[in-house]
Amino acid sequence: MGDRFDDLARAAQALDAADPLAPFRARFRLPDGLIYLDGNSLGPLPAATARQLAQAVADDWGGRLIASWNEAGWIDLPAAVGAALAPLLGAAPDEVIACDSVSVNLFKLGHAALVPAGPGRRVVLAEAGDFPTDAQVLEGLCARHGATLLRLPRAQLPQRLGPDVALLVLSHVHYRTAAMWDMAGMTAAAHAAGARVLWDLSHSTGAVALDLNAAGVDLAVGCGYKYLNGGPGAPAFAFVARRHHATLETPIRGWMGHAAPFAFEDAYRPAPGVRRLLAGTPPILSLLALHEGVRIAAEAGSGRLAAKAQALVRLFRAGVETIDDPDLAIETPAAGHGAHLTVRHPEAWRIVRALAAMGVVGDYREPEGARFGFSPMVVTHAQAVEAARRLAHVLAGRHWDDLALLPKAAVT
Amino acid sequence: MGDRFDDLARAAQALDAADPLAPFRARFRLPDGLIYLDGNSLGPLPAATARQLAQAVADDWGGRLIASWNEAGWIDLPAAVGAALAPLLGAAPDEVIACDSVSVNLFKLGHAALVPAGPGRRVVLAEAGDFPTDAQVLEGLCARHGATLLRLPRAQLPQRLGPDVALLVLSHVHYRTAAMWDMAGMTAAAHAAGARVLWDLSHSTGAVALDLNAAGVDLAVGCGYKYLNGGPGAPAFAFVARRHHATLETPIRGWMGHAAPFAFEDAYRPAPGVRRLLAGTPPILSLLALHEGVRIAAEAGSGRLAAKAQALVRLFRAGVETIDDPDLAIETPAAGHGAHLTVRHPEAWRIVRALAAMGVVGDYREPEGARFGFSPMVVTHAQAVEAARRLAHVLAGRHWDDLALLPKAAVT
Repeated sequence: MGDRFDDLARAAQALDAADPLAPFRARFRLPDGLIYLDGNSLGPLPAATARQLAQAVADDWGGRLIASWNEAGWIDLPAAVGAALAPLLGAAPDEVIACDSVSVNLFKLGHAALVPAGPGRRVVLAEAGDFPTDAQVLEGLCARHGATLLRLPRAQLPQRLGPDVALLVLSHVHYRTAAMWDMAGMTAAAHAAGARVLWDLSHSTGAVALDLNAAGVDLAVGCGYKYLNGGPGAPAFAFVARRHHATLETPIRGWMGHAAPFAFEDAYRPAPGVRRLLAGTPPILSLLALHEGVRIAAEAGSGRLAAKAQALVRLFRAGVETIDDPDLAIETPAAGHGAHLTVRHPEAWRIVRALAAMGVVGDYREPEGARFGFSPMVVTHAQAVEAARRLAHVLAGRHWDDLALLPKAAVT
Repeated sequence: MGDRFDDLARAAQALDAADPLAPFRARFRLPDGLIYLDGNSLGPLPAATARQLAQAVADDWGGRLIASWNEAGWIDLPAAVGAALAPLLGAAPDEVIACDSVSVNLFKLGHAALVPAGPGRRVVLAEAGDFPTDAQVLEGLCARHGATLLRLPRAQLPQRLGPDVALLVLSHVHYRTAAMWDMAGMTAAAHAAGARVLWDLSHSTGAVALDLNAAGVDLAVGCGYKYLNGGPGAPAFAFVARRHHATLETPIRGWMGHAAPFAFEDAYRPAPGVRRLLAGTPPILSLLALHEGVRIAAEAGSGRLAAKAQALVRLFRAGVETIDDPDLAIETPAAGHGAHLTVRHPEAWRIVRALAAMGVVGDYREPEGARFGFSPMVVTHAQAVEAARRLAHVLAGRHWDDLALLPKAAVT
């Protein structure tokens, strides 16, 4: 069992020896021996985050109390995290802000896109089978903007762009298949049709190369708790190209999005630029953790993160392709993909459980999907090969039969 | 100087000796000697929160990673915090959920109130001079619901209730004056006119007695970082009376508000009850801190918290009333108030700074307001008197002249 993985393992060893990101692994706390292929669902804990958070809680909250809003910089934290994130996106520092959740930011930017679109442009396009929340948030918005949401298969989206389309909402990297859109090409196609694209970068940021401004992107949102390692439920972010700042309108006229939150004026005056997207008081403890995660990813650098993630997926894929199982299908395209790989199998739920029992943590995605993410700072090339070897082992021996038939947990 | 405070100080000593909440003070970390009268802006750090958070970061995030969504109960945390909060509100456990910010929750519940109101009811009433965000959030919503927001002076609101009014949005306790509405009376008046009230409980929860269900309240929001001691920017909460759950509509159809977030269905199906108000993935670290704060407040009990806060404000007021300064005015009503007291003075900004230099932390509120909050678990009766004594001292000696004229900080 597993000899066919020896060549891959040797290749992996060489790649690990030459890996410029290898030193970053030691900056994360991970259980010994664990092959963690779920950093795309919850990125692991940076050791620095635990330290910084304990210090902030004890000294800034506990010791300096209210003064920390100024003295510890809490009031500027959403903008500071946004600025730290900007190089990973190919954005300017003042085009990004960390706040709220992806769902709430989709709502805000969907509104921002629908307002300036003319009354003749009342169609919003989404991809059928894409992460459903994105379309659902936009569908809810459409009802209040006299607009209609259409879900179309991926291949039909480009040709549907036309004079009635206000907005296309797309996951840059598909949450399940990892298929990656040509961001510049789709943005240009939308612009040619007079529409905009709202990019969801949740499965992209910190894992694939991004250059939003080079691609002419108008609007984007993304997630802090995946490859940015910002902690469970870390705040999300929003990007708005600077050319749209002057006319940017948020539907939620929240406290911190006011030009002068502490003037207590009856009249609403939006804060400059993306700052008006802030709604209420930001969750500082969660933002501090995100800040540390973003700093580490920015230090690693977008190019190195993307290159390694691609190499890891390639290695894992090469291993999976050696598995001879008629029930197993690789859903992830061989080219043009993000940093995860999904296989389909009727027993995917139990396969994921069996692998976890063997120290390889991936996740299950309805229906019948086993998804493996390759967070580039924390997974080694050797682990990518070893994970494929263990998957082959589980499949060859039907090792899921050893497990009691566990009920599916709430979060899978 | 100060002899006239001796009687008050003796009374305070007796009250402290008999204070059933006295043992709670030791459960908070506060700098030695500090008289912290700003717990209504940022509640202090419970010692248990620092411990719990460090444990959750190290063991749950760092050690068990993604499994903690189930095993550490993260997925149910918004509902668990809501249930823990319910007794402090006079609500049922399934009527409260902790999520997002006050601004975002105002937006959601404002929408929920405007949808069922008929086309003839398109007026939303707010109080001029109340915390401006509440009216601004509703004003933004009105634009998408064909409705109009009117800001009226406090005294004119009851008589303006009429057949065209959908909603009245009110701070139960005024952020500046601490004036407290008769919740049951105003709710009944609104109902008699066919309207609803959306109560903002930010300055009430954990500080005054609340019985939302006895008062027939439909909708309420509130803040986690004030008297609930949930930490900087702690998540907020939303209350919806159970009778409205079946028809409750949220404008933001977010991921965690779906009936089955992990089924990845294209179609939106709202989660049961208040759970549908969840939008994106909640910020777990901030929610964990809030959970601990709420648990302590619930243990102290709404009745004891309210009684002590009233006694503290009374003592402080009695001290302030002895001050003979023609420029000083107490803005807080003598009866029917929350747990803070605001004085107006042309030099309020520098008075607040001078007091801080003397170990009494209050906050400044534009224009000319010095606000002092009496968080009942952390302020002693003796401190309330001593704070008034120091205020008298600062005013008598114009001690603010000793301070360099500092610029006003971003957060005041």
